[in-house]
Amino acid sequence: MNNPFLVEVTRGNLVESRHRGSVSVVDAEGATVLSIGDVDRRVFPRSAVKALQAMPLVESGIADKYGLTDEEIALACASHSGEPDHAATAKAMLAKAGQDVGCLECGVHWPMGEAANRALAATGGNPSALHNNCSGKHAGFVCLACGQGQNPKGYVLADHPVQRSVREALEEITGACHTVEKSGIDGCSIPTYAIPLPSLAFGFARFGTGSGLPGDGKAAAARIRRAVARYPFMVAGTGRFDTKLMALLGERAFVKVGAEGVYCASLPELGYGVALKIEDGNGRAAEAMMAGLVLRFLSLDIEERRAVEALAQPVLKNWNGIEVGQIRVSSEIKGAA
Amino acid sequence: MNNPFLVEVTRGNLVESRHRGSVSVVDAEGATVLSIGDVDRRVFPRSAVKALQAMPLVESGIADKYGLTDEEIALACASHSGEPDHAATAKAMLAKAGQDVGCLECGVHWPMGEAANRALAATGGNPSALHNNCSGKHAGFVCLACGQGQNPKGYVLADHPVQRSVREALEEITGACHTVEKSGIDGCSIPTYAIPLPSLAFGFARFGTGSGLPGDGKAAAARIRRAVARYPFMVAGTGRFDTKLMALLGERAFVKVGAEGVYCASLPELGYGVALKIEDGNGRAAEAMMAGLVLRFLSLDIEERRAVEALAQPVLKNWNGIEVGQIRVSSEIKGAA
Repeated sequence: MNNPFLVEVTRGNLVESRHRGSVSVVDAEGATVLSIGDVDRRVFPRSAVKALQAMPLVESGIADKYGLTDEEIALACASHSGEPDHAATAKAMLAKAGQDVGCLECGVHWPMGEAANRALAATGGNPSALHNNCSGKHAGFVCLACGQGQNPKGYVLADHPVQRSVREALEEITGACHTVEKSGIDGCSIPTYAIPLPSLAFGFARFGTGSGLPGDGKAAAARIRRAVARYPFMVAGTGRFDTKLMALLGERAFVKVGAEGVYCASLPELGYGVALKIEDGNGRAAEAMMAGLVLRFLSLDIEERRAVEALAQPVLKNWNGIEVGQIRVSSEIKGAA
Repeated sequence: MNNPFLVEVTRGNLVESRHRGSVSVVDAEGATVLSIGDVDRRVFPRSAVKALQAMPLVESGIADKYGLTDEEIALACASHSGEPDHAATAKAMLAKAGQDVGCLECGVHWPMGEAANRALAATGGNPSALHNNCSGKHAGFVCLACGQGQNPKGYVLADHPVQRSVREALEEITGACHTVEKSGIDGCSIPTYAIPLPSLAFGFARFGTGSGLPGDGKAAAARIRRAVARYPFMVAGTGRFDTKLMALLGERAFVKVGAEGVYCASLPELGYGVALKIEDGNGRAAEAMMAGLVLRFLSLDIEERRAVEALAQPVLKNWNGIEVGQIRVSSEIKGAA
């Protein structure tokens, strides 16, 4: 089936570009709340599931064993901008497990955040793996390995105990089989498993409510959601969508960007999980759609509504600050007014 | 009509993202060579027509009056990376017209090229309008204004003599009416007029051959094509697609990226003009498609073919240099093997 147009980008009076996509909203019992587009097609959740990948670290008690703070737990769920506080926090997590940057296997890239990027260049410095947007998740993996008494070396590989724990946690919470045939290697070198959007949405419905999670899963999910809501800077960074939305709404919306136009969210008060994919992988469209869905489902006061509308329909300005167009979410996403 | 899938991005064994688009290839008499997707929909050519926008500067004799070099003419057609040689060349162009950076109206942004961006930051410097990717085009506009005895102030506005000359040149070469109702403001603040892909392709067929261009149009087009072929670094920059392709093929292919997934080309030996648009505005897909079309239409030797294939089907690597996927152009673009 053809995915519908869900986001358009205007210039002057015309539509310049259009984004198609699919979205699934599911409740914690797995019932469909909303389904648009080809939701059966498997998508790679990649960074959108970092909070779910952090479950074994918290649920096992290893986060407590190492005395990880809420900032550190939030960073374990992050695609951060590589700002100094992000890098320092990842370093501190590693130190708690008796490790350092040398054991990170995520690879090195310059800070994702433009200002952080140039600030680092201005010092004459070079980036380390601590600046990789996934360094917090990886520091969490290293803590998990050390806490389990495993050698962290090779922790990115599918058959290392760390990735086995992570895959089992993902299968448990989403209910979807995670198989090698439907896997790929992520930007930071860990395996990523393609699953359908409704399974992903179901996982986030359960992450948001704890419903049906065995053992200490419910408490672990609540702890992670609280940590991120308290420190939304840690999960993204200055000016970023996830940071802005969670700074605004706190624990009412857990949202997390993934690569290639994937976005996931938990809306705990409704018991809903949300998963969406922009067909072409575009991030601006995924953000606008997520903001549009938050507007649709959550009751917001006037100020909150205005702030989320600005994220759902951002005005586009050029290098002279002149308004040249807008990003707009379709009425299919907005639902009834 | 639905635009077909023309480019896919894989991860592991799966397709992660897909791009739809449209393409028109037309000869210098306006006959259709290839038409895929919804080619009637108007697109904003934006930066893809910089070479056509440079026609009045050269055709009027003003480029010669100021003694503009081939490097400078190539820069007038550029979306450059803001490397030191780009900024210095724009400055030199302005000086020839007795002007300086203060009269540029394109706005300021940090260099588009990552290395240039960080190198500037490392010096403790800040960008000027000379680093704007459009500074060469704008320096050309300033030369045109001064050469015509006009005050350059306001040269970005639709009713300034510079933009009138530019609009007339675009209408002349493409044969398409450029109206205010179908216009928008570009990133650098000049007007951009939406026209259908076949008109754009026709303009580039004529730009590549000079066919039917009145007055000194044919000589001006040839001069611009030669300048860019001699100095492909000036039109883009280190590691950029246009620079690599034209460094490889010289005057056999004039290619120019536009914003939001638009790409144009002239293939003079065939008399063809090419114009394409990725529906969602994605640049990686537009580049792969353009390389795929060059492979389809030009006879290349083994080495050239290998180099262009690498642009049409780039391998995607992650931060550790591990191959994680590929960008692939559909068989509809490749045509018969």
